Amino acid sequence: MRCALGLDYGTNSVRALVVDVDSGETVGSAVADYPSGDSGVLHDPRDPHLARQNPADWFEGFFASVSGALAGVDATSIAGIGVDTTGSTPMAVDAAGRPLALAMPERLDAQAWLWKDHTSIAEAEEITEKGRGTPYLENIGGKYSSEWFWAKLLHCTRQSPDLIDAAASWVEMCDVIPAWLAGIDDVRAIPRSACAAGHKAMWHTTWGGLPSAEFLAKLSPALASFRGKLYNQVVAIDHRVGTLDPDIAARAGLSPQTVVAAGAFDAHLGALGAGIRPGMLVKIMGTSTCDIMVAPDDGSIPNIPGLCGVAEDTVIPGMLGIEAGQSAVGDLFAWGASLGDGDHARLQAEAADLIPGETGLLALDWNNGNRTILVDQALTGLLVGQTLHTRVVDVYRALIEATAFGAKRIVERIEEYGVPVNEVVCCGGIAEKSPLTMQIYADVLGRPIRLSRSEQTCALGAAIAGAVASGLHPTVADAQAAMTGFKDRVFTPEPGASATYRRLYCLYLDLHDAFGLPGARDLSGLMKSLLTIRREALA
Amino acid sequence: MRCALGLDYGTNSVRALVVDVDSGETVGSAVADYPSGDSGVLHDPRDPHLARQNPADWFEGFFASVSGALAGVDATSIAGIGVDTTGSTPMAVDAAGRPLALAMPERLDAQAWLWKDHTSIAEAEEITEKGRGTPYLENIGGKYSSEWFWAKLLHCTRQSPDLIDAAASWVEMCDVIPAWLAGIDDVRAIPRSACAAGHKAMWHTTWGGLPSAEFLAKLSPALASFRGKLYNQVVAIDHRVGTLDPDIAARAGLSPQTVVAAGAFDAHLGALGAGIRPGMLVKIMGTSTCDIMVAPDDGSIPNIPGLCGVAEDTVIPGMLGIEAGQSAVGDLFAWGASLGDGDHARLQAEAADLIPGETGLLALDWNNGNRTILVDQALTGLLVGQTLHTRVVDVYRALIEATAFGAKRIVERIEEYGVPVNEVVCCGGIAEKSPLTMQIYADVLGRPIRLSRSEQTCALGAAIAGAVASGLHPTVADAQAAMTGFKDRVFTPEPGASATYRRLYCLYLDLHDAFGLPGARDLSGLMKSLLTIRREALA
Repeated sequence: MRCALGLDYGTNSVRALVVDVDSGETVGSAVADYPSGDSGVLHDPRDPHLARQNPADWFEGFFASVSGALAGVDATSIAGIGVDTTGSTPMAVDAAGRPLALAMPERLDAQAWLWKDHTSIAEAEEITEKGRGTPYLENIGGKYSSEWFWAKLLHCTRQSPDLIDAAASWVEMCDVIPAWLAGIDDVRAIPRSACAAGHKAMWHTTWGGLPSAEFLAKLSPALASFRGKLYNQVVAIDHRVGTLDPDIAARAGLSPQTVVAAGAFDAHLGALGAGIRPGMLVKIMGTSTCDIMVAPDDGSIPNIPGLCGVAEDTVIPGMLGIEAGQSAVGDLFAWGASLGDGDHARLQAEAADLIPGETGLLALDWNNGNRTILVDQALTGLLVGQTLHTRVVDVYRALIEATAFGAKRIVERIEEYGVPVNEVVCCGGIAEKSPLTMQIYADVLGRPIRLSRSEQTCALGAAIAGAVASGLHPTVADAQAAMTGFKDRVFTPEPGASATYRRLYCLYLDLHDAFGLPGARDLSGLMKSLLTIRREALA
Repeated sequence: MRCALGLDYGTNSVRALVVDVDSGETVGSAVADYPSGDSGVLHDPRDPHLARQNPADWFEGFFASVSGALAGVDATSIAGIGVDTTGSTPMAVDAAGRPLALAMPERLDAQAWLWKDHTSIAEAEEITEKGRGTPYLENIGGKYSSEWFWAKLLHCTRQSPDLIDAAASWVEMCDVIPAWLAGIDDVRAIPRSACAAGHKAMWHTTWGGLPSAEFLAKLSPALASFRGKLYNQVVAIDHRVGTLDPDIAARAGLSPQTVVAAGAFDAHLGALGAGIRPGMLVKIMGTSTCDIMVAPDDGSIPNIPGLCGVAEDTVIPGMLGIEAGQSAVGDLFAWGASLGDGDHARLQAEAADLIPGETGLLALDWNNGNRTILVDQALTGLLVGQTLHTRVVDVYRALIEATAFGAKRIVERIEEYGVPVNEVVCCGGIAEKSPLTMQIYADVLGRPIRLSRSEQTCALGAAIAGAVASGLHPTVADAQAAMTGFKDRVFTPEPGASATYRRLYCLYLDLHDAFGLPGARDLSGLMKSLLTIRREALA
């Protein structure tokens, strides 16, 4: 048997997955929770925006999860390792490439700045403001996010300049871990992920890599001078970072010849594990949703306003990666359930007994802001159409539908800019657990929806990277052909439901534009339209 | 001791209240539930809009409630009886003035058409449509309601013409009961309530009473010809209908010399019992809210668009009565609580710990439509500003605030048309039970709020009518001076809360107008404004 190991570093835990590279079958799997903080997240009671992570958790988590995954597995069959992580989750490192956090566990700013850390809202707005008129924002949707690399680094230059002085560089989590695995002890030798750079650090070959020092100087002289400590080339996930550090290999029970592939973000490797190819939209649906597409890098793909990014080599080497997303999906369903007794199973069953339009409700899916199209965290939820008879289950179904309408808006935006969406594949917890959600998405999108065969597409994508980097497969496409697939069940749009949802979607767009875009809009007929749709649905 | 008996006929039960007319103190009180249907309401499983009532319940309820209220009371001290009822609750009667329902208990259309019966929505729209350009709609806010007399009678002419043929007249519940008590056995001798006629049957002296036969003929020839079976004069609540029927007096243990006063609707007599006078707004707050004012009938009061009516002699004889209202208040709070575990007491306590603006939420109070200002039952609820952290208690408080904003809009409308609102007095179940609601109303309205001293203002108002009709007091004002008063506690606006609510009210108006009135409006800053208000409230 020929195997690869995929490591999927999430927010609260790390999963190790041993995969047969010829069949894609899982040979071993285990999860290790992070011990630090609140399920692996470090908080600051004085600042609810702060979310940090202790890098030591990742290193210990590697041994714990790999040990579990290797139970009953012939470890010598593992030729390559791939790594996916959350992101943008950058941190300060020393000259050897090790996180400063390890030496100063008490300094929150020295820890990894977790993807969902929002301490840098002001800096993100400043980058957006000063980036206007430059090319840097064009392929990340026109707005910079507080979740991303430069906002966090800029905030740190202001708040903890001593740490900036002490740092040899700032590195993303998805680069720190492969470098540590491969025993790299020089920060300048750490390969940097094209995925992280392209989607979060305004990297693009058009302007020669990172933004210019002149631009960064407009934000902060410290930032401009720190640019020299960063990087001027990036690698795709088929890049071979090195072989496993002998000490790590010995402790983990793996061969020191095991090849370590370059890392990437979880959603992007998840898309790989779902079998992504041009024309396919992969939706990784969990607490939030990431949408990933790939397209030939032949100059035919424009910048698409409102998307998180169109960047080079970020999913499949040699192709453009297109990223979009919704800030709350599973989280939104959980919120709806929390209004009642929180019993998802019963709500899913009862909501499935309702027909489209029956609730009379329409919601905006913005309880956690809007990540794609409007790119605005300062938006909130909306529910309209409730009567004295409206129940939690009605709200719950309306929230599922709202995320489906948000998903449709994203598909339309992508297609408006000339990228065809020929097939939709879903994966992740929501896709696995909620057939109701999948059917509503099929009905709202008016397209069949398939599910990824693997229930661990991110870790599988990481294993694919390991398989390619180690030469077990010559290309990513070959690895995908051997290792990925779909479940048998296809969710097919029901014409009557789709017709009702087309009407509701028009009303959703009215609300979306009225509350999300400048200008005056006429909403005076909206409540009556919902009542009409409800009456006709029930007739 | 000199006493009067007030009978308050509600939707589910009747209350008898024996009151000392010199002090206003309650001497005896008892409630009798109606035995028929669902807590007194007859439903049709095929039509959720239908709500009827069995008149036999009222007559038996009289004896049961009076028997309880007389326990330990010297019945000979009772000189007068007054009656208030729900309305518009009309029904077909025979030549003796007895409901046809008594002889045909199986015919739903022969029963009383309860105020909340909405089977006549189409007829109400038709009356509004054909009434445009006539004076008839001008002082009832420009729209006719399916809850009102003519819509119900028109619907019956179409659906049960045999009952129209069999009927000697249609009479309101508030007239049927006093006539029965006084032993009137000729339908033509039944005094008709100015309150019911003026607010619900388009009665006004300007056009000589009821609408013309020509106008009614445009709706239906049957309606026009039925006009002759109705009435051409009305009476105020100081009118003496007669003395108690000897058989009824004997069975009830009352003197046959007891004077029976003309009846009126519950809210209007409730306003009387709360001490209404010019410049005072009385809010009767229960499942819904009725707002009542009185003003001199000197030609200075215009028609006020969007109000339920400005009509003659409907509260205090010789004065105009002004009626407005909100379709869901206590019902809306109950709905909010029903999303969670329904524990009002806990929600009231927890909501009181929040400060104005803290929820970040804003709601429209339209889950049961909008009765005043927009006069549109086909409007629904709206909630905006929710995040993933929003709890049921936040929604609950936002709903209380929404009804307060709706109340403020009504006060502003009344004042816009030149009627000053100098004092606000609340009564009814919500006023009694929720100090939180009263404080929010004081803060939102920016005015002190007092509560009626009596907790049974409707029955007290009926007793006042009995006291005046029987000559125990020479005028309504004298009776009010002796029998009504306020509780000691005054809810005073807190300046900081009022300032926050002024900002939120502007946003409420934006939503109100955007969803309730034709035309395009700019809502794009609303979610951000809510976030700003929240941030500043918490700072």
